[in-house]
Amino acid sequence: MNREILFTIEGADFDAWTKLAREATPNLTLIPDLPADGTKPAEHPGIHYCLAWRPRKGLYARVPDLKVIFALGAGIERLLADPELPPHVPLVKMAEPGLTEAMIHYVLWQTLNHHRRFWELEMAQRALRWVEQDYPAPWNRKVGILGLGALGEATAAALRDFGFQMRGWSRSPKAIPGVACFGGLDRLAEFLDGLEILICLLPLTPETIGILNADMFRGLAPGAALINAARGGHLNESDLLPALESGQLSAATLDVTSVEPLPREHPFWRHPRIFITPHNAAETAPATGLLEIARQIARFEAGQPLEHLVDRARGY
Amino acid sequence: MNREILFTIEGADFDAWTKLAREATPNLTLIPDLPADGTKPAEHPGIHYCLAWRPRKGLYARVPDLKVIFALGAGIERLLADPELPPHVPLVKMAEPGLTEAMIHYVLWQTLNHHRRFWELEMAQRALRWVEQDYPAPWNRKVGILGLGALGEATAAALRDFGFQMRGWSRSPKAIPGVACFGGLDRLAEFLDGLEILICLLPLTPETIGILNADMFRGLAPGAALINAARGGHLNESDLLPALESGQLSAATLDVTSVEPLPREHPFWRHPRIFITPHNAAETAPATGLLEIARQIARFEAGQPLEHLVDRARGY
Repeated sequence: MNREILFTIEGADFDAWTKLAREATPNLTLIPDLPADGTKPAEHPGIHYCLAWRPRKGLYARVPDLKVIFALGAGIERLLADPELPPHVPLVKMAEPGLTEAMIHYVLWQTLNHHRRFWELEMAQRALRWVEQDYPAPWNRKVGILGLGALGEATAAALRDFGFQMRGWSRSPKAIPGVACFGGLDRLAEFLDGLEILICLLPLTPETIGILNADMFRGLAPGAALINAARGGHLNESDLLPALESGQLSAATLDVTSVEPLPREHPFWRHPRIFITPHNAAETAPATGLLEIARQIARFEAGQPLEHLVDRARGY
Repeated sequence: MNREILFTIEGADFDAWTKLAREATPNLTLIPDLPADGTKPAEHPGIHYCLAWRPRKGLYARVPDLKVIFALGAGIERLLADPELPPHVPLVKMAEPGLTEAMIHYVLWQTLNHHRRFWELEMAQRALRWVEQDYPAPWNRKVGILGLGALGEATAAALRDFGFQMRGWSRSPKAIPGVACFGGLDRLAEFLDGLEILICLLPLTPETIGILNADMFRGLAPGAALINAARGGHLNESDLLPALESGQLSAATLDVTSVEPLPREHPFWRHPRIFITPHNAAETAPATGLLEIARQIARFEAGQPLEHLVDRARGY
């Protein structure tokens, strides 16, 4: 039973996606939003599903029979902020193994970078100096993840399996075996207390904008490290350099910044204990992403609830 | 049944080890080689076991009833090279979970560093430049480990579980599920062919000295990365900079160097694509190391063969 998916991702290689869809999900047919001549957007009556990320202006009006919008990624704040977003069409966040695995890799990579104090080693190398450097066993290293959605939960479990002493915080209480979970703002201080590596995987909502700020940093262990792999808006950027200068934070990894690409004149570039990656921590893998969409369509058409559905009131 | 272990590790904190032994292995009593006044070495008749790393001159002659020598670490080439080593006393390499886990962490950390091309990101950061950077899925990344002893085998399995496409090479053939294993020198070229990240965890023997050389590098994929966490002697140091200059290698991580500490004037310090760590990839964890010694003593006294026994003819 073939299903058509309107493919609206600008800049993506439509032919490559189509080839993967033929192999991975032969029941899905990707339909380009723009016709091959690339000029005038087409109308798409009869199409029930679309894959969206930064939709072209007027898109939704041209898909009158839309039943589900699948987001290409997990962080959907820009899709939600679009005034054209149809109010009653369900919006589904992406949660697929390729994206999750890439995020686990990124966070573990950077957690190890801070666990082994890469910046201390790099500074020693620049000074041509062989240092004596010790580090605690991972089970004595207190690591916490803000945000226990699909990515946060999988990452917390992976870091736990890797031996770190794990905590997690989320707005609504969660339970993850072997991870100390804290739910709600009134348990945030408890989550932060003594934490040595803080990882942000939160959704960006009015409640979480600027949550990584001087107040939060003061709640951590002195010399804690920060890893932000969520959104630039989570970090109150003017609080980071003072926290690094005072020693409240030892170092930070930023995959995201408030303005991307980060402008050349931004002082973060030049700080020896800030490591910047160009918002490439994790991307949806087309093949497994398409498999997930096919799975969700099958659920939807069988009358089962969609998974990873966006709650518009909560904003994630 | 109490057993005495002669503790000969210079520079180690004897009191800390003793405290851990009381907690973890109350049946083991650590005996210091030097008396508390630290001057004249004592004689140790009646002691059957010792924990050794860089034995003091004349040590073994003062332990006439020695039955087993336990090495503090996995790489025992220096113990073997000691002309005083008693020829008929079994020598046991250390293999314990703390050491193994630390090595897995180190190798995974550095594998991720090369998988995500940290040096490209750091160079971009120094140039104040946000780059578009892509990387293959881990299962398309060909990673190989030279040396499948206790550390190599565990590390290969961990990297496999983490999604990398794994190969392993060892002198005698091994089988590790999900890892393509190559045994013997005549299969080395096959192991190297197309490999993108090469990890050395070999023992240092006359056969493996200088094995990381221009010839081997030419067998790898162009732009491959090297991680040496074994011994400085494995690398033919004069071949590394030319391989980095030609692009045959993209980058290298060295935990070990031929001379340690690496002298200030050594050109490795200043190369932007060589990352040096001060021979602290992995150390034996005292508590689990003592548990392993207690386990081996129990086997030995029950007439079972010692595990991780050094084969002196092979040199590991």
